[in-house]
Amino acid sequence: MHCDTLWTNAHLITVDGPGLGVIRDGVIAAHDGRIVHVGPAGSEAHLQPNRRVDCGGRWISPGLVDCHTHLVYAGNRANEFEQRLQGVSYADIARAGGGIVSTVRATRAASEAELLAASLPRLDAMLAEGLTTVEIKSGYGLSLDDETKQLRVARELSRQRAVEVVPTFLGAHAVPPGRQAQEYIDEVCNMMIPAVAAQDLAEAVDVFCENIAFSTAQAEQVFVAAQAHGLEVKIHAEQLSNQHGAALAARHGALSADHIEHLDADGIAAMRAAGTVAVLLPGAFYFTRDTTLPPIDALRAAGVPLALATDSNPGTSPLTSPLLAMNMAATLFRMTVDECIAGFTREAARALGRQARIGRLAVGLDCNLAVWDIEAPADLVYRIGFNPLHARVMRGVSV
Amino acid sequence: MHCDTLWTNAHLITVDGPGLGVIRDGVIAAHDGRIVHVGPAGSEAHLQPNRRVDCGGRWISPGLVDCHTHLVYAGNRANEFEQRLQGVSYADIARAGGGIVSTVRATRAASEAELLAASLPRLDAMLAEGLTTVEIKSGYGLSLDDETKQLRVARELSRQRAVEVVPTFLGAHAVPPGRQAQEYIDEVCNMMIPAVAAQDLAEAVDVFCENIAFSTAQAEQVFVAAQAHGLEVKIHAEQLSNQHGAALAARHGALSADHIEHLDADGIAAMRAAGTVAVLLPGAFYFTRDTTLPPIDALRAAGVPLALATDSNPGTSPLTSPLLAMNMAATLFRMTVDECIAGFTREAARALGRQARIGRLAVGLDCNLAVWDIEAPADLVYRIGFNPLHARVMRGVSV
Ligand SMILES: [Zn+2]
Ligand SMILES: [Zn+2]
Repeated sequence: MHCDTLWTNAHLITVDGPGLGVIRDGVIAAHDGRIVHVGPAGSEAHLQPNRRVDCGGRWISPGLVDCHTHLVYAGNRANEFEQRLQGVSYADIARAGGGIVSTVRATRAASEAELLAASLPRLDAMLAEGLTTVEIKSGYGLSLDDETKQLRVARELSRQRAVEVVPTFLGAHAVPPGRQAQEYIDEVCNMMIPAVAAQDLAEAVDVFCENIAFSTAQAEQVFVAAQAHGLEVKIHAEQLSNQHGAALAARHGALSADHIEHLDADGIAAMRAAGTVAVLLPGAFYFTRDTTLPPIDALRAAGVPLALATDSNPGTSPLTSPLLAMNMAATLFRMTVDECIAGFTREAARALGRQARIGRLAVGLDCNLAVWDIEAPADLVYRIGFNPLHARVMRGVSV
Repeated sequence: MHCDTLWTNAHLITVDGPGLGVIRDGVIAAHDGRIVHVGPAGSEAHLQPNRRVDCGGRWISPGLVDCHTHLVYAGNRANEFEQRLQGVSYADIARAGGGIVSTVRATRAASEAELLAASLPRLDAMLAEGLTTVEIKSGYGLSLDDETKQLRVARELSRQRAVEVVPTFLGAHAVPPGRQAQEYIDEVCNMMIPAVAAQDLAEAVDVFCENIAFSTAQAEQVFVAAQAHGLEVKIHAEQLSNQHGAALAARHGALSADHIEHLDADGIAAMRAAGTVAVLLPGAFYFTRDTTLPPIDALRAAGVPLALATDSNPGTSPLTSPLLAMNMAATLFRMTVDECIAGFTREAARALGRQARIGRLAVGLDCNLAVWDIEAPADLVYRIGFNPLHARVMRGVSV
């Protein structure tokens, strides 16, 4: 059988169970951007590749998938970080126009070109660690024009770089300055969601359900509007308190419930029943010095799929390293090496509804690969602040 | 005045007080590897540079200084990390030949060329973040031949890369398998230290003073031997318990006392009196999930100099990112932005006895620079897993 490329002399982390599905001394082949063969060395006799790549004994995993980011924004909140360390209270910073409001102001003021230029270095840092798919949320515009501007920039990023971008509409991220929550949610549901859907600018709709943001009733209103327009739903839930948002989202068939430090047994049961993915965000846990761990053991026991993500954002997780997020998940959450790697590949793909197309090394899936200079899969999780990426492959092509 | 190079259109983080000594829109000039001018734009009229470098509004800091690493070792302990996450106890790992003993075994078995090859990627990761000076300890050989092998590799690293390496003899890191502590310390003092000094392989001698390692009496014996051979002294102290090692070291005029989570008021007073630098290691604090914070407020109040370092090592801090160590110092230790940056420049230089030659942008010092794509100094500390280095300059030369 003819094919484009055959990678040989590699160890494969297929993430195609059981465990990580490791094939020592394996081969993998691509044709027309898809994986057409995966197996041990010697299994490729029937293939006639145009090109052979000797991987020199390196390891190949699926390209990494970051299923929760707020990568597109303008402004810089390093100054707030500095002030907090000097003892200035969050309330004083907010009174001075800081906090999320400052990111909204800067994002609204930025042109699409400026937003793109601000976001590219963050994306490039992630790509340098083997990322091939990234979800990007809006949520710093909080008006139709500014939210769609963010979403257009997210789409443009996928044209500027070899990466698949999954755009999510998060108009319900915060109440815009000077507005009332319910009146704004009505606008999100009746005007913004229809417009975003009509312009095909997002695949899913997210909502920040929290006592400082939107209620479960408002979240449900968002879900109903999203689904009426054929969009998937997901939720920021149970980060600061238990609002029962994850259970609500699960009942609406949400792709994922994210953060969930304060999730209870009912929420876990609802997520399990619906197949809703738990997206854990150790970077935000670390940066905000949270002390309430997500209920990992209970989620594990229930068989809820566990994904990981960077939550890259300027306020609570200025993190652009998927590998570091894995280390934090292991160190802070005690997730295993297998869970950390699956959390940034197979399970992250599931959180994006793409588990049939990306996130594993299996025949028929997109040939998105990360080639690593490591001795074992655990190296990806164990090291801190070290990037062993050797090469990145997007739909069969080295990029 | 003639000079080699003039950098213009830059903001300078001189770290030459007060605070970070920032000069917005500054210039800096080098001749014969030394800084010959630092000042605001316009102050360079008297200079006739051979070469001008327009920094495009970027920021320049002193090259970073990592004053505490165990960078030269062989073997890989990612597997132990993985086992611990699966619930295997440290005792069971040690019984199976894991822990520091496994690093000693691998380091002893490695040739100098193999040790060099294993260490270079770790060094390169640090250089990529603007490092220009790195302290490297022995301590995984625990025999004269294997300790000096590590120290020769440390020296060779400075020949292979544009970096200043400061070698430290840490023969008193652990009791070698099958030996008695006192008998081994006698060998360290009577045989190894004289040999290391005679071969000029180290500038300083370090000792791990802890209930699982060596006593204060043994540490004192090491200090006396080191000083008899003209070597500086320093100590790993008060990491797991208060052994009063830092006070002992201070009384011996130690350059630094490192870790010091369990340091008490007497230790602080002794360090202050002696000018001994407190070297804080947030990477080890993070990785070992320590909960006892070093007494930062008391150290600050006493005016003890605070340095930061990666403690890069395979067992408790597999960290190769100075920038991440800064973020951890801010996030976990609540050190300010100024303290974090000074901790990896001016104060780290002081911990190496080099405060008159490196660590600041001031006339007469080595022209070691890091040029950053940032908007403000706080960016260096605030971001997580992002490397904004634009260029590195070693003794006046871009490298
Ligand atoms: Zn988020
Ligand atoms: Zn150490």
